[in-house]
Amino acid sequence: MKKRDSSPSAKRFFEQRESLNDTVMKYADIGIKRFFNLDTSAYTEGALSVKVKEMLGLTASLVLRCDDCITYHLHNCFSSGLTSKELTEAADIALIVGGSIIIPHLRRMFKEWDLLQEGSDE
Amino acid sequence: MKKRDSSPSAKRFFEQRESLNDTVMKYADIGIKRFFNLDTSAYTEGALSVKVKEMLGLTASLVLRCDDCITYHLHNCFSSGLTSKELTEAADIALIVGGSIIIPHLRRMFKEWDLLQEGSDE
Amino acid sequence: MKKRDSSPSAKRFFEQRESLNDTVMKYADIGIKRFFNLDTSAYTEGALSVKVKEMLGLTASLVLRCDDCITYHLHNCFSSGLTSKELTEAADIALIVGGSIIIPHLRRMFKEWDLLQEGSDE
Amino acid sequence: MKKRDSSPSAKRFFEQRESLNDTVMKYADIGIKRFFNLDTSAYTEGALSVKVKEMLGLTASLVLRCDDCITYHLHNCFSSGLTSKELTEAADIALIVGGSIIIPHLRRMFKEWDLLQEGSDE
Amino acid sequence: MKKRDSSPSAKRFFEQRESLNDTVMKYADIGIKRFFNLDTSAYTEGALSVKVKEMLGLTASLVLRCDDCITYHLHNCFSSGLTSKELTEAADIALIVGGSIIIPHLRRMFKEWDLLQEGSDE
Amino acid sequence: MKKRDSSPSAKRFFEQRESLNDTVMKYADIGIKRFFNLDTSAYTEGALSVKVKEMLGLTASLVLRCDDCITYHLHNCFSSGLTSKELTEAADIALIVGGSIIIPHLRRMFKEWDLLQEGSDE
Repeated sequence: MKKRDSSPSAKRFFEQRESLNDTVMKYADIGIKRFFNLDTSAYTEGALSVKVKEMLGLTASLVLRCDDCITYHLHNCFSSGLTSKELTEAADIALIVGGSIIIPHLRRMFKEWDLLQEGSDE
Repeated sequence: MKKRDSSPSAKRFFEQRESLNDTVMKYADIGIKRFFNLDTSAYTEGALSVKVKEMLGLTASLVLRCDDCITYHLHNCFSSGLTSKELTEAADIALIVGGSIIIPHLRRMFKEWDLLQEGSDE
Repeated sequence: MKKRDSSPSAKRFFEQRESLNDTVMKYADIGIKRFFNLDTSAYTEGALSVKVKEMLGLTASLVLRCDDCITYHLHNCFSSGLTSKELTEAADIALIVGGSIIIPHLRRMFKEWDLLQEGSDE
Repeated sequence: MKKRDSSPSAKRFFEQRESLNDTVMKYADIGIKRFFNLDTSAYTEGALSVKVKEMLGLTASLVLRCDDCITYHLHNCFSSGLTSKELTEAADIALIVGGSIIIPHLRRMFKEWDLLQEGSDE
Repeated sequence: MKKRDSSPSAKRFFEQRESLNDTVMKYADIGIKRFFNLDTSAYTEGALSVKVKEMLGLTASLVLRCDDCITYHLHNCFSSGLTSKELTEAADIALIVGGSIIIPHLRRMFKEWDLLQEGSDE
Repeated sequence: MKKRDSSPSAKRFFEQRESLNDTVMKYADIGIKRFFNLDTSAYTEGALSVKVKEMLGLTASLVLRCDDCITYHLHNCFSSGLTSKELTEAADIALIVGGSIIIPHLRRMFKEWDLLQEGSDE
């Protein structure tokens, strides 16, 4: 959690996310609320570690090309101790499976990762 | 129509949309022009009401994850009298079918809807 | 329900679906089970009728191009009283939004609908 | 046209396609009919040749991963004189853009192309 | 490798895959050949284990909804020692991210997994 | 190349692209580097001209709805001598295949094209 806060862009991202979630919850019925709970539960420690689960979420988000989802899982990967080498290998698979159409998202992901690395050096 | 104009963001959205459509039409051939006409015709009153048709357009846009298309159909849903409860149930189906990858779009949709609700109280 | 059984292909479809669901449930954890429950709940009567909800599910399935999902919602649309004219208007919107890439699915959908219409005449 | 008929699988494909189109037309409204006409018109000779247009349709179908659409445009590419070398270069671009997820479709496309080549040698 | 051969459906799947790959290679240029090599290399042992990499490939294939790709990575997951519990947790994430539209693929995946489990008991 | 530089927005686009590519390369392994090389090679002159190949890349990017990819190929189409009439016919096919969901991308593409046309008049 401390690490996640170290980048100003991460802080902005999570604050905006929370604020928008509040608006969703203002209108959400039981179905949407339960979906959000299921979504959170899916990434908790189990037979697979949080790190592996977050990598699965990141790779799925890359091939489906959703920047917000990529940024979210990237921060969680960082918090759960993913190394740059591991990230690159996961990105490699996403790139092969998803093709060059995901490259713009890959660029923004590594830019964000680079900021996180700088923040974690301090 | 009056209602649609009540939110400044809606006004901006439709003005920018018209301006860009003008540029498309500057280059469009008969094929593109006919497609745009077909697109408009598909949402007119028929065996299905405009409200139901706009909900179909909104749900399709949500699962295909296109913000501009979502905003466009959301305003038309609002104009055709969709209630917040009905919107939430349509969103619920889109979320179940399309998965968590659509959540960022759902957040922006409810934010816009919230602005429309405030505007319609005045 | 009686109507749904009238077509042999429908019967085969639902039987195979149940059999495969049994295999999923053999391996499913609480997350997958809850998702299946949420999926069922999303289409129950609410502010929107079952018929409208099933049309939303059908249109979403058409633009996402999933034959099994289309067939499933088509049968539910039929059971909830959707008319051919209403189906055609929903299909029209799916075709405009999703483009010619959905036509092969549209063909199979109308073929199945045609069988259902014949079955319902008896 | 003669070439297109030379492969039995091509003949089956186009016969089944026509039969299903008849069923679509039984239920189609003016919107669907106009869409089908627009679809046909888009591939007629213009500033771009039929061969280039069919290659565009084929590449779009490959990255969107629709077997029926691929087979349809492949036959039209063949009829309009596309060479194996040209097909391979178009496939190369589709593979780079769309990623390994399109490989199963690429396999079936080259299998069909191979049958067409054999048929055209006779 | 021995385990992979134990199921007749697996054998059929890999034989048909090889045969179709031969046809691709008959027409492939250097670009397509290099892509196929890159695809193979991406899943070799590195900072991430083969098991984790195959899980990433499986999850990406599930959310992109490609049956052939799912079956391929499922067999590799099995060969690399993935447990049923781990598979279920990966499937859970794919289902949450990708939504109910992936359920037909999930059904066929667990059916195949079930056959693999039976084969491995002998 | 001179033409590509004539629009300030093009200059900004390519500078930002290069800068982000530098960040990707900071973390890239051999797999990602080779993919980037393959991507570049796919669009070089061969049996198909650069112009046709860039049109294939543009159409694929349109139906997959990636703004960055569209802008990139649009500039290359412009540099390789594509006419407005040819662009419109390619756009027409992308619109028919991909449906109205691509219209927002089509709008931004023609806006950019319009800027390029103005720049090339000087």
